[in-house]
Amino acid sequence: MSNSIDFYFDYSSPYGYLASERIEEVAARLGHTVVWRPILLGAVFKVTGQAPLTEAPLKGDYAMKDFTRSAREHRVEYQHPDKFPIGAVAASRATLWLRDNCDPQLRAMTGDFIHALYRAYFSAGQDITDPTVIASVADSLAIDSQTLQLAIVTQAVKDALRIEVEQAIAAGVFGSPTMIIKGEPFWGHDRLEQMERWISSGGW
Amino acid sequence: MSNSIDFYFDYSSPYGYLASERIEEVAARLGHTVVWRPILLGAVFKVTGQAPLTEAPLKGDYAMKDFTRSAREHRVEYQHPDKFPIGAVAASRATLWLRDNCDPQLRAMTGDFIHALYRAYFSAGQDITDPTVIASVADSLAIDSQTLQLAIVTQAVKDALRIEVEQAIAAGVFGSPTMIIKGEPFWGHDRLEQMERWISSGGW
Repeated sequence: MSNSIDFYFDYSSPYGYLASERIEEVAARLGHTVVWRPILLGAVFKVTGQAPLTEAPLKGDYAMKDFTRSAREHRVEYQHPDKFPIGAVAASRATLWLRDNCDPQLRAMTGDFIHALYRAYFSAGQDITDPTVIASVADSLAIDSQTLQLAIVTQAVKDALRIEVEQAIAAGVFGSPTMIIKGEPFWGHDRLEQMERWISSGGW
Repeated sequence: MSNSIDFYFDYSSPYGYLASERIEEVAARLGHTVVWRPILLGAVFKVTGQAPLTEAPLKGDYAMKDFTRSAREHRVEYQHPDKFPIGAVAASRATLWLRDNCDPQLRAMTGDFIHALYRAYFSAGQDITDPTVIASVADSLAIDSQTLQLAIVTQAVKDALRIEVEQAIAAGVFGSPTMIIKGEPFWGHDRLEQMERWISSGGW
């Protein structure tokens, strides 16, 4: 059984997006699988008292510059969205519905769905809080959007997201992306390389 | 004339310490020089509204774990100080007095003095806000500690630190370490590799 990397991300997180474009390649090199864990930083920030990065004086200006610079370095399309940040509740619920689906074919679509949603928001400038945008992303992947839209308003899927966020906070997650491997946390797109060195060297 | 890397750091910053142990080697590989720029994050935080990293819920726990983990990776001695954080006003003034000294032999000691002070604090557990500790570090490098102690209470040296901090804020510095190369800022010990790739590739 291969080891796994828990990949915690918020759909509103530029660094989550950048890391999502690279994590599978890194995991494959390491013989690891990726467990996608959508969270809501809004809920996390209520616990930590943090504010969105881009709202911080000086740090926010740096972050805005760094999003596009880091995207250029890794040749990822990036266009900072007009509507930012967002609370991507429906998108996160849809992701969990796919990830935890009984149908293995749907489960296998989780990564593609995440990439498509993230790119819709951070590259194509679409508002992924809009249910019609989520439906259209699903349809583009031949995921039945009507079934999806019915599923994400069920109590089971609502609970799944709430539990996912609570579990993330319990695991010490305070930002996006956070990668956890056998209890070892790495926070930030800029820690992918360190995480890879840590895994491949057996830790230090 | 070689290019330079402005290295902004606070003596109370664990990541500043870790980066200080590596920046000269990185700069040498790139054919760059290091300009040491001691700042006071306490003054910067008044502008940005930030709080010390280790005081943030969840994030602080991660940081404490990560200081020692990152130190182990880079084989830097690290012992989290009992008295933390500190406001290293005298140490920062002493550093500026050396860096901007008329005597080229003293100027050339700046890097060694910084390393000795940082190691005294983060490895030997000494309180570098204590003037006798600063004097003893100076003496260990054959820097006349009496002259130093007289110098750092002069208005000229006090002003030098105030101006250094103001200039850092004007340059957008909000954390330690921050490296700026030709106006391009890189924040964090974990950005040394990206900074190196940026310089050696000519930017992106």
